Amino acid sequence: MILKREAFPLPDAWYRFRVSYGETDMMGVAYYGEYPHWFERARGQFIRDRGMGYGDVEQRGIILPVREMHLRYIKSARYDDEIQVRCAVREWGRASMLFTYQVFGPPDGETLLAVGQTQHACVNPQGRPVGVPDWLKALFQTV
Amino acid sequence: MILKREAFPLPDAWYRFRVSYGETDMMGVAYYGEYPHWFERARGQFIRDRGMGYGDVEQRGIILPVREMHLRYIKSARYDDEIQVRCAVREWGRASMLFTYQVFGPPDGETLLAVGQTQHACVNPQGRPVGVPDWLKALFQTV
Amino acid sequence: MILKREAFPLPDAWYRFRVSYGETDMMGVAYYGEYPHWFERARGQFIRDRGMGYGDVEQRGIILPVREMHLRYIKSARYDDEIQVRCAVREWGRASMLFTYQVFGPPDGETLLAVGQTQHACVNPQGRPVGVPDWLKALFQTV
Amino acid sequence: MILKREAFPLPDAWYRFRVSYGETDMMGVAYYGEYPHWFERARGQFIRDRGMGYGDVEQRGIILPVREMHLRYIKSARYDDEIQVRCAVREWGRASMLFTYQVFGPPDGETLLAVGQTQHACVNPQGRPVGVPDWLKALFQTV
Repeated sequence: MILKREAFPLPDAWYRFRVSYGETDMMGVAYYGEYPHWFERARGQFIRDRGMGYGDVEQRGIILPVREMHLRYIKSARYDDEIQVRCAVREWGRASMLFTYQVFGPPDGETLLAVGQTQHACVNPQGRPVGVPDWLKALFQTV
Repeated sequence: MILKREAFPLPDAWYRFRVSYGETDMMGVAYYGEYPHWFERARGQFIRDRGMGYGDVEQRGIILPVREMHLRYIKSARYDDEIQVRCAVREWGRASMLFTYQVFGPPDGETLLAVGQTQHACVNPQGRPVGVPDWLKALFQTV
Repeated sequence: MILKREAFPLPDAWYRFRVSYGETDMMGVAYYGEYPHWFERARGQFIRDRGMGYGDVEQRGIILPVREMHLRYIKSARYDDEIQVRCAVREWGRASMLFTYQVFGPPDGETLLAVGQTQHACVNPQGRPVGVPDWLKALFQTV
Repeated sequence: MILKREAFPLPDAWYRFRVSYGETDMMGVAYYGEYPHWFERARGQFIRDRGMGYGDVEQRGIILPVREMHLRYIKSARYDDEIQVRCAVREWGRASMLFTYQVFGPPDGETLLAVGQTQHACVNPQGRPVGVPDWLKALFQTV
């Protein structure tokens, strides 16, 4: 599941932040349960970069709940480390999509800390699966 | 704001749990930002002990958002420590109420780790202040 | 990856709790990023049930960082839902182990909400891989 | 405790971010327990703006654990809202200091969402109170 940097799908988005104290654990590194939050923020950045917000997507009646998550932890992140999460859509299903992620850390954001992916259903507000609308697919493919 | 154990209002409720790894930080102790979660769970326990759930309270149209929080940290909690949070209503306003808390830790739940209080508005689903309904006051005073 | 209930490895452990308000998100369900915390608490319960604590394991010089996590979300959990997380070791590597999980919810803890697994390296305090010690393997296989 | 914008002590620092999905709760707003995390990140920003990192402060043997926290919630924050947390030192004790905070939200970061303060002890790595070192006071007063 480790994706080479050059093979990453486009368009991509980068979400940048620093590891906070509350995200560390007694081992002195970012707790493994924080990474799904980072992925979610990177997805939010991806959608914002496309010119919309995920909140707007939901208001148009399209909810994208996570159905599956896969995460591989390669190297620890520490307090105050500058982290960059790269995010893009790798695959489209009829009523689903697959986001892929790379997490980079210091020095210079060149070290790969983790990789992951999340599969999302496309559902209406009642939770029923719906085909991915064309406007969403077009939006997410906007460069 | 340190409340003597004997002066704690009644009825009270006790919420018991163990500090998880994800709640610790790189200092090796429970992160200070976890305590509001503990207070919230203790409030939930308090309401359940009275025979209802906070979800039911909200479904009856009464929301109790936190307006103010005060927390005093006395002694650290560590991973796997057995924690007991004591919780009760200390004061009633016309459209508000004040919850009070004590956090105890090992050995034997006899060591006071923190004290705190949260003030809650009583509002309707539109966010407008409403007088505390009699049924809620009666419920919270049930022993 | 959905594991039949009867095929779950033994010994297992059950971690029980209620979904807190802080674990919910604006969709009204438990946020997907909370599940890794639940898994970690279930692992802690598993180790405690065997007669030790994970803190003791670390003090003996054995750290078990998560190297990979896989999670499949089947059905949402809601505020105040009683959740039961079942946990056991599924596989042993020379210097690693695989924990497996099932998350059950209401009614009666009979509904499967999620399944998952976490792969852990076995390392010393300097982060170097070490073979799983016999005492740890024996401990985790204690019924 | 509501501080007028003009009375805020200097030097101050601003920490900017957007509310993530995982920070919201089933009421549709940022959970009250997230604010202490925001304060901590704002403190980290404050120290970084002064030219150091809090990690460096700790490595010099000075730990600043929170002893008391006071928070007043005025207006809710919602998903994707742009938040700005302003932070500064308000008071110095012999072996303590008081940080003060203002949380602003949309539109244009002009709406005051919350105010708060955290009192910190100044301790050595063994947890013993120590007088605030001159270099720390000088650092935190650097404009």
